[in-house]
Amino acid sequence: MPLMMKAVVKTRAGPGFELCEAPIPQIGPKDILLRTRATSICGTDIHIYNWDTWAANRIKPPVIIGHEFCGDVVEIGGLVTEVKVGDFVSAESHIVDHTCDLCRTGMAHICRNTQIIGIDRDGSFAEYVAIPADNAWHNPPNMPPEIAALEENFGNAVHTALETPVVARKVLVTGCGPVGVMTIAVTRAAGARSIYASDVSDYRLNLAKKMGADLVVNPARENLTDLVLEATGGEGVDVLLEMSGAPSAIRDGLKLLKSGGHAVLLGLPSKPFEFDLANLVIMKGITLHGIAGRKLWETWYEIRGLLRSGAVNLEPVITHRFKLEEFQQAFETMISGNSGKVVLFP
Amino acid sequence: MPLMMKAVVKTRAGPGFELCEAPIPQIGPKDILLRTRATSICGTDIHIYNWDTWAANRIKPPVIIGHEFCGDVVEIGGLVTEVKVGDFVSAESHIVDHTCDLCRTGMAHICRNTQIIGIDRDGSFAEYVAIPADNAWHNPPNMPPEIAALEENFGNAVHTALETPVVARKVLVTGCGPVGVMTIAVTRAAGARSIYASDVSDYRLNLAKKMGADLVVNPARENLTDLVLEATGGEGVDVLLEMSGAPSAIRDGLKLLKSGGHAVLLGLPSKPFEFDLANLVIMKGITLHGIAGRKLWETWYEIRGLLRSGAVNLEPVITHRFKLEEFQQAFETMISGNSGKVVLFP
Amino acid sequence: MPLMMKAVVKTRAGPGFELCEAPIPQIGPKDILLRTRATSICGTDIHIYNWDTWAANRIKPPVIIGHEFCGDVVEIGGLVTEVKVGDFVSAESHIVDHTCDLCRTGMAHICRNTQIIGIDRDGSFAEYVAIPADNAWHNPPNMPPEIAALEENFGNAVHTALETPVVARKVLVTGCGPVGVMTIAVTRAAGARSIYASDVSDYRLNLAKKMGADLVVNPARENLTDLVLEATGGEGVDVLLEMSGAPSAIRDGLKLLKSGGHAVLLGLPSKPFEFDLANLVIMKGITLHGIAGRKLWETWYEIRGLLRSGAVNLEPVITHRFKLEEFQQAFETMISGNSGKVVLFP
Amino acid sequence: MPLMMKAVVKTRAGPGFELCEAPIPQIGPKDILLRTRATSICGTDIHIYNWDTWAANRIKPPVIIGHEFCGDVVEIGGLVTEVKVGDFVSAESHIVDHTCDLCRTGMAHICRNTQIIGIDRDGSFAEYVAIPADNAWHNPPNMPPEIAALEENFGNAVHTALETPVVARKVLVTGCGPVGVMTIAVTRAAGARSIYASDVSDYRLNLAKKMGADLVVNPARENLTDLVLEATGGEGVDVLLEMSGAPSAIRDGLKLLKSGGHAVLLGLPSKPFEFDLANLVIMKGITLHGIAGRKLWETWYEIRGLLRSGAVNLEPVITHRFKLEEFQQAFETMISGNSGKVVLFP
Repeated sequence: MPLMMKAVVKTRAGPGFELCEAPIPQIGPKDILLRTRATSICGTDIHIYNWDTWAANRIKPPVIIGHEFCGDVVEIGGLVTEVKVGDFVSAESHIVDHTCDLCRTGMAHICRNTQIIGIDRDGSFAEYVAIPADNAWHNPPNMPPEIAALEENFGNAVHTALETPVVARKVLVTGCGPVGVMTIAVTRAAGARSIYASDVSDYRLNLAKKMGADLVVNPARENLTDLVLEATGGEGVDVLLEMSGAPSAIRDGLKLLKSGGHAVLLGLPSKPFEFDLANLVIMKGITLHGIAGRKLWETWYEIRGLLRSGAVNLEPVITHRFKLEEFQQAFETMISGNSGKVVLFP
Repeated sequence: MPLMMKAVVKTRAGPGFELCEAPIPQIGPKDILLRTRATSICGTDIHIYNWDTWAANRIKPPVIIGHEFCGDVVEIGGLVTEVKVGDFVSAESHIVDHTCDLCRTGMAHICRNTQIIGIDRDGSFAEYVAIPADNAWHNPPNMPPEIAALEENFGNAVHTALETPVVARKVLVTGCGPVGVMTIAVTRAAGARSIYASDVSDYRLNLAKKMGADLVVNPARENLTDLVLEATGGEGVDVLLEMSGAPSAIRDGLKLLKSGGHAVLLGLPSKPFEFDLANLVIMKGITLHGIAGRKLWETWYEIRGLLRSGAVNLEPVITHRFKLEEFQQAFETMISGNSGKVVLFP
Repeated sequence: MPLMMKAVVKTRAGPGFELCEAPIPQIGPKDILLRTRATSICGTDIHIYNWDTWAANRIKPPVIIGHEFCGDVVEIGGLVTEVKVGDFVSAESHIVDHTCDLCRTGMAHICRNTQIIGIDRDGSFAEYVAIPADNAWHNPPNMPPEIAALEENFGNAVHTALETPVVARKVLVTGCGPVGVMTIAVTRAAGARSIYASDVSDYRLNLAKKMGADLVVNPARENLTDLVLEATGGEGVDVLLEMSGAPSAIRDGLKLLKSGGHAVLLGLPSKPFEFDLANLVIMKGITLHGIAGRKLWETWYEIRGLLRSGAVNLEPVITHRFKLEEFQQAFETMISGNSGKVVLFP
Repeated sequence: MPLMMKAVVKTRAGPGFELCEAPIPQIGPKDILLRTRATSICGTDIHIYNWDTWAANRIKPPVIIGHEFCGDVVEIGGLVTEVKVGDFVSAESHIVDHTCDLCRTGMAHICRNTQIIGIDRDGSFAEYVAIPADNAWHNPPNMPPEIAALEENFGNAVHTALETPVVARKVLVTGCGPVGVMTIAVTRAAGARSIYASDVSDYRLNLAKKMGADLVVNPARENLTDLVLEATGGEGVDVLLEMSGAPSAIRDGLKLLKSGGHAVLLGLPSKPFEFDLANLVIMKGITLHGIAGRKLWETWYEIRGLLRSGAVNLEPVITHRFKLEEFQQAFETMISGNSGKVVLFP
């Protein structure tokens, strides 16, 4: 066992990352150490790379970035019973306290004391990563590493798409980034009648089509409201899955949602914005669901079910693969908007 | 049977109402005619009285106002089978089409073609009022008329309070107008652990206490956030019932709501306002329920259950009684804020 | 317009039907008259044909049989507004009163005063059939008549399969008659992880495979419990959809159901039977859903969604087609067990 | 600290218990040791006392009995962080594995590997009892010990009564043993419109009245069906809470349940019995909920809410108090049927 490893590190406050030699993490009695096989780039990582306001407030450098990953277990702590050396696991990135009122009532995914791997402590853009054994999710040995790495992020899509019934219903998905297009795939697998998708990137709309959208709309040059109303005979949609965080998408999406419909919101608006709650939500009798993380572990069982049955194929989402050392190029690809998911191989 | 009756009429665009002689309504084959026994003033009637923007856009004078009422059936149309002359009924004020997709899937309360009595057609501030037989709700003969008149508005409170479980839970009710305090009573009847209530009127907070609030807060001079956090050991509440429409109440209420909690919104903000959807709703995994009207007829059965068992006593809500001719004084009382429900007797 | 029509009639108490000349039905003001385009045979029709105890107690001859059908509207009553001559419609077979407490609270499908077409009044094994306009469901003009006829029965499958979430879950379907195999198709369309199906007929198991079952088991010669436990790694299934009414299937199905699972029961046991409620249901924390008819009209919208999106293809279910005059042969085919759905064309 | 303690022990296969000197339990690193303050007798303890078939199959003597209890923490294991010496706690009696699929998806109360304190390992009819720290529930210091001891059993009542909405609804509770009458109290606290209760013991029916039943029926000399139909205007009830396990109560209860209603079953029939699933459940579209244990920890938070708000007062349920040494008399009292809850004080 070596002592040092390669890692992509946010070394100081400010934009960018550095490739460093870092010590291989020590593990505690309830932890496990993984040899990272694949790790993918999340939108959150872009925020940290760019060092926006959120990142500046949250991140305490130096920290190794990365929270979507899989690996082989190479060491386990003394109290670990459910994971053994040699297991191939993915990781839930939220480390929860198991003791707060939320953890004790089925809402561990929004635990009062959540710590996130790769944000609040060292993450997976490295050859090795240490996690609590409780955060491990077992994969079959033959699962492709890039798919296994993607499970965490796919979980956001599964959580969103399955929050409210979509079977036989008309669904609008606003925002076709990687989570958006995976949400489309889940919605399709779950039997939606029709899926309308919007994004300002044609690259992503093309991916949305591949993943199962029936109609794609670029609001930069098309009228989303007109096109969806036309496609739905003037009625609008039963379900809105909002994956962009863009105020215009939220407003248009809610306008297009039928009275009594359900809006599931995952995309994070970057700041407060003006919103007509009376006409868009209250008088229409709409239910609006805020989505954070993945349900522990209901969502992970659903991830497993959807992947093992073949109902969802994530291969088309993964558009680019890089070595860990090529992280710079990987981030530039991701930032360009002309990509689906970008995976790093340490 | 006389030909003419007294009625309070919005005779023309602009503030105020007039007491007029009006013809007693003619009924169609599916309608019934009621001799009005009691009719109460709704917040909506104040908007029409004041002739605000909403009223100016919606109301087509001349129209008889009033949509909370009860009466004795004095005439029935030729196709009516479920109501007979002499029945004592209250009325659902929403006239729905029974044929749209929403009506056909359990959501008639948000029918695509809703017409409202006293708003879109003549209402109950009159000696007689005609309604579709489908909108009648049978009362026991000995129910006090002012309680029967109040059932429609009470239905908003029941719909709001029972939208999500409150039993054994901590609940914040923001806004203690008549619907707010009735909501408190339902929440108490349904077994809430504790009820915190806020309003800027001390008169109303006093009524809130009478109807079952454990702690009342006047944000005009007290810090709602501090007081509710203190009362809940820093945890916040499980359920928010928002009855005011005030942006500050919505924001504070959502801040005080625990992650994973449910916010039920009935109060209508008067216009769009800035709102931190990311931090107040999405990242907290909150579910937000817009509430319109009363479920047809689930809510009405619940109204019946709560009143007949004695679980809710509406008497304290009714603070003022006037003759129809005294409508001017009645509206002034209501507008003063120093009242609960004001009832007119034609 | 002719005065008489061909009809298959239960003319008297006892087994069998007769092909008769019958008067074309007169319609009331709220009714419509259809020229029947296709009508399929239900298991219930077999009971009536065989004149078992249930049939002897329920049916009052003479009555025209048949309740799964579609047709062209050739006449409408004076009060009908939502259907017009020339429309191509299917029919909900349950005629409900619209006024009982169940109808008024979203449970019209179990109305206290349900009358069933083809059972309590004349049905569709005839050239013409009269139904209340309220029971009509509009189809696109180009829908194949045998599919349109099948919608009512497909509705039982949709109601059963969508009663509880199946997406990403392991599902056992016991009973592969026509409703059973359609239930398999819906379960597959709704994203089930795996579908295990059982029946004592190999013909039907073959059909089950075609409609989407992953594993089929014939309990007449295989051990259902062993095979499903093996297939599920010893865990059992998340959902049981019971379509047979056979006591052994109900018992085995519940044994195979995981604790906390959901059992949805549509198959009707022919008589009371011994049942270990303590060990099979209560101590396992299982929820058991009795299913009757189709939700009015939630299920029908789901039928439409599943068929229009192509998520379900019903073609393979329809294995035999006969002229109305060949009803005898049609019934013999159905009774043989070596058929899926059998359709008659008047 | 002494080495030995008094304990009520099932010393060998066969009826009865013995008062023994037993060693004070040793604790492991995740356990805590309680000085028992109060412990109450459960129906299950009667089965063990009587040594019926279930007990003979499950219990491995010698074992200290007792699983409803509270106590002061006198020692904690080395890995315990959430409990400290001096805390006053009650105990969840189900020890779960935290790792099975059920534990990981919000169903720990029906964990695949549940061990029960006082059944599968030593329990609380003793001066000291050791439990996993995970099973402790904190009480306020001033809570009466007999109430704190009762929380576990009260949890069964809370779980049953709150499984489906009862607010404003008509409820039938069959079986008025201690859990039955506590269920009545919760149902009342949760706003039921009316509560009908049945039992063959007049003593218990009297207690049912005290806890909130509107109408009590002794089926040994009265006709339950007639009386409840009369009380409900022929309609029957919305919810059945079955607490007796008696086949006749289950059958009558389901007959009295409205179509579309919910039956919640906690009482355990002693053996399989004949049951008309078709007519009592399936064709009526009824949902039947099997209830086991208490939800971890949703139910416990509800217990806390109901007790702290004063919505439920358990005092009247506790009819007899004995010293631990008087266990023989305590069991005879309990077996007589002329008691509510019987509490032992070690």
